[in-house]
Amino acid sequence: MQTRAVISEFLGTLLLVFFAVGSAVLGAQFIGTLGIALAFGFTLLALAYALGPISGCHINPAVTLGMLCARRIDVATAVRYWIAQFVGGIVGAALLFLLAKQVPGLQTKGAFGSNGYGDRSDVHINMGGAFLAEVVLTFLLVFVVLAVTHRVAVVGFDGLPIGIALAVIHLVGIPLTGTSVNPARSLGPAIFAGGDALSQLWLFIVAPLVGGVIAALVHQLTHPKGEERTIADEASAA
Amino acid sequence: MQTRAVISEFLGTLLLVFFAVGSAVLGAQFIGTLGIALAFGFTLLALAYALGPISGCHINPAVTLGMLCARRIDVATAVRYWIAQFVGGIVGAALLFLLAKQVPGLQTKGAFGSNGYGDRSDVHINMGGAFLAEVVLTFLLVFVVLAVTHRVAVVGFDGLPIGIALAVIHLVGIPLTGTSVNPARSLGPAIFAGGDALSQLWLFIVAPLVGGVIAALVHQLTHPKGEERTIADEASAA
Amino acid sequence: MQTRAVISEFLGTLLLVFFAVGSAVLGAQFIGTLGIALAFGFTLLALAYALGPISGCHINPAVTLGMLCARRIDVATAVRYWIAQFVGGIVGAALLFLLAKQVPGLQTKGAFGSNGYGDRSDVHINMGGAFLAEVVLTFLLVFVVLAVTHRVAVVGFDGLPIGIALAVIHLVGIPLTGTSVNPARSLGPAIFAGGDALSQLWLFIVAPLVGGVIAALVHQLTHPKGEERTIADEASAA
Amino acid sequence: MQTRAVISEFLGTLLLVFFAVGSAVLGAQFIGTLGIALAFGFTLLALAYALGPISGCHINPAVTLGMLCARRIDVATAVRYWIAQFVGGIVGAALLFLLAKQVPGLQTKGAFGSNGYGDRSDVHINMGGAFLAEVVLTFLLVFVVLAVTHRVAVVGFDGLPIGIALAVIHLVGIPLTGTSVNPARSLGPAIFAGGDALSQLWLFIVAPLVGGVIAALVHQLTHPKGEERTIADEASAA
Repeated sequence: MQTRAVISEFLGTLLLVFFAVGSAVLGAQFIGTLGIALAFGFTLLALAYALGPISGCHINPAVTLGMLCARRIDVATAVRYWIAQFVGGIVGAALLFLLAKQVPGLQTKGAFGSNGYGDRSDVHINMGGAFLAEVVLTFLLVFVVLAVTHRVAVVGFDGLPIGIALAVIHLVGIPLTGTSVNPARSLGPAIFAGGDALSQLWLFIVAPLVGGVIAALVHQLTHPKGEERTIADEASAA
Repeated sequence: MQTRAVISEFLGTLLLVFFAVGSAVLGAQFIGTLGIALAFGFTLLALAYALGPISGCHINPAVTLGMLCARRIDVATAVRYWIAQFVGGIVGAALLFLLAKQVPGLQTKGAFGSNGYGDRSDVHINMGGAFLAEVVLTFLLVFVVLAVTHRVAVVGFDGLPIGIALAVIHLVGIPLTGTSVNPARSLGPAIFAGGDALSQLWLFIVAPLVGGVIAALVHQLTHPKGEERTIADEASAA
Repeated sequence: MQTRAVISEFLGTLLLVFFAVGSAVLGAQFIGTLGIALAFGFTLLALAYALGPISGCHINPAVTLGMLCARRIDVATAVRYWIAQFVGGIVGAALLFLLAKQVPGLQTKGAFGSNGYGDRSDVHINMGGAFLAEVVLTFLLVFVVLAVTHRVAVVGFDGLPIGIALAVIHLVGIPLTGTSVNPARSLGPAIFAGGDALSQLWLFIVAPLVGGVIAALVHQLTHPKGEERTIADEASAA
Repeated sequence: MQTRAVISEFLGTLLLVFFAVGSAVLGAQFIGTLGIALAFGFTLLALAYALGPISGCHINPAVTLGMLCARRIDVATAVRYWIAQFVGGIVGAALLFLLAKQVPGLQTKGAFGSNGYGDRSDVHINMGGAFLAEVVLTFLLVFVVLAVTHRVAVVGFDGLPIGIALAVIHLVGIPLTGTSVNPARSLGPAIFAGGDALSQLWLFIVAPLVGGVIAALVHQLTHPKGEERTIADEASAA
């Protein structure tokens, strides 16, 4: 099962970057901020039901870190997941880059769905604001993931709130930073965008991880311990 | 469980104000009325599944009042919930204010996602109209909450209709009053907006509470008594 | 249970007209055709979960006719439902009219969310086209209702597809006729709109009923007989 | 059951083309790319719950091919499904054509919701890019279908992620090719559009089928074998 789980994390992150970041790269002027926000949320919702029973469908290093802090997975699994997620994000961005090259006149340098602050933000949010935003935005995602996969939650009603939470996170965050909340989603596009996308990349790796840790800590205050549903449980409950 | 429930109500209201009101404050020109309406509904949907098994996820004094009238919770719990909700709403607005200050040129005085009537309404609805609107809008929310958490409803199918109801309530109400239907959602932003936001605040506290009481009364006509699912039931059913 | 069911049909139709038609009357220029389509679908989705276990949440004479043809309810119940639905639709429109009067400059004569064809259609569809459109649009709604409440469907997964179906029906139908697919939704607003809204009303009563009957007939070809889930089953399954 | 299944595939594909392609033909300027994307996803979501227990609700030759490769259905059933789907798509397009003719001034030649590349694409994507796009877009759809109907998935949570996946596929793909991912959805409209819609049609038949086969192969890497839920299981589990 372990191998299938790692493949799932790789594939899921690849698809998340290709489809959700792709909606921004290929269709921003057609679907607007609202359409891009729904693309992120809808992609995660669909993948959560497709891959959730196999790997938990983290497809996000900040979620995996939150799960690790909450002792739902062990360190060895987390490391494998992280590698799979970052590689998946890069391959997804590469596939998107290859497709974008077939569209005449499409600019791939500079933006390419990467995250940013300062003059790379739609509203020119400053660095501190971007950091704060990414922490709080990621907090909601990881908190919801931990809560709706907790044993007190009704089985099956996890992918829906997780995907919908990611949509609202993007409704708020796209104007600010383009919304990372996921270091693997940020790395891939930044590699192909180049320039300042790379020099600002650190923030979109660190801040989401901080948000994930805080979510795991706060989760202990709201949800009883010792009753966690593990990935294995989830698969067997299915 | 009681402490976790109160923390949940505090945290949930904080997050509702930060994300849903935040979508209006930070992104109105990017996502439009439709995007803001979805942000409110989606935030509540996600939180309902995350916090519902712990506290029922009222995160709204009008919902708590409706639950109290329907004898689903006792007065002591309701009072604790109300305090947690109002404090959570204020802290959520403060966090949003802190973030908004990092966006150059963003105006936080006057509007800041607060509710209003007369010249503070997009369509200049008068005070009586605003009161009527908030009563009926809140009626739908509280009626749906009472009905889908009633014992005749299918377990799990509560957060979805509740969140979706809040979205439609905002589709109708944003042009009228900005949509309160939740005194705790109105108080926090009004404090930071100041001026007329505060002088009109009473309406967005009173009218939603009236709507919540009417919902509880009408609910008795449609749904059989003595078969309520309590919060404790819900947690144990999970 | 019978009285509660009739009250539910009255209340549900009232709320559907107030909220869904209200989104068009009060907010069309803010939320656009997409927002209005979602308002219709979302309102029905929320009400389906709130009232479904009590009355089946038809809140539409064409749905009730389809249910009658499929022998899921008896004639006496259908007649009570029809009366409750038409009265509910009128009261909902009256409440909306009262609210609209509090908005300075809002025109309530002529349109007021009523349905139309010819020069009362956004695309000037002719009468035959409007009739055909309403038959097919209603067919989808009633067919989905019959299918997802059939015994082969998974319990709980009815309100979601029914509400979502109504949203897509409006995405297609609003430019054509404003979308009726529900005689009770058409009658109330037409009374307040007056003029040609009333002279064209017959089409929006007859065509949806025809669509509902065809749906019941086709449903027999796709779904096995003698295995229907009745309203009583649904309540007891909950 | 077999006959009902074939009728379901015919009817479902007919309705998918009429409603989803119809939203583009009749309402593009009213609902935009986002509205059309939601129309596709919402129609499939509703039909998946309505027809899923009868036929699996493939209503797409690429899905049927993926199911065949995954050994969930036999060749004889697949052939019957394919015929039903293509005929359904043509009849759906004919019905849509008949309706469109009732709208004065509506152009049905040339586009009529057909797919295209080069100067028939909004962004002028080249042929290779269109092929790549359709393969990856279809991959997501068929992979999600295979995964969420696999035995490890929670019963009932299939139509939701499948419909939502189709929505996001259209958010990405409409600007590129108009999005096929479904040979039966492409054939019908192309017949009525005529001209280059027919000469480019081969790509929108071949590429989705390739995507479907790849999805079935990758699915073997993520999901355990010998535990598939068949169509018969699904109906009996309901």
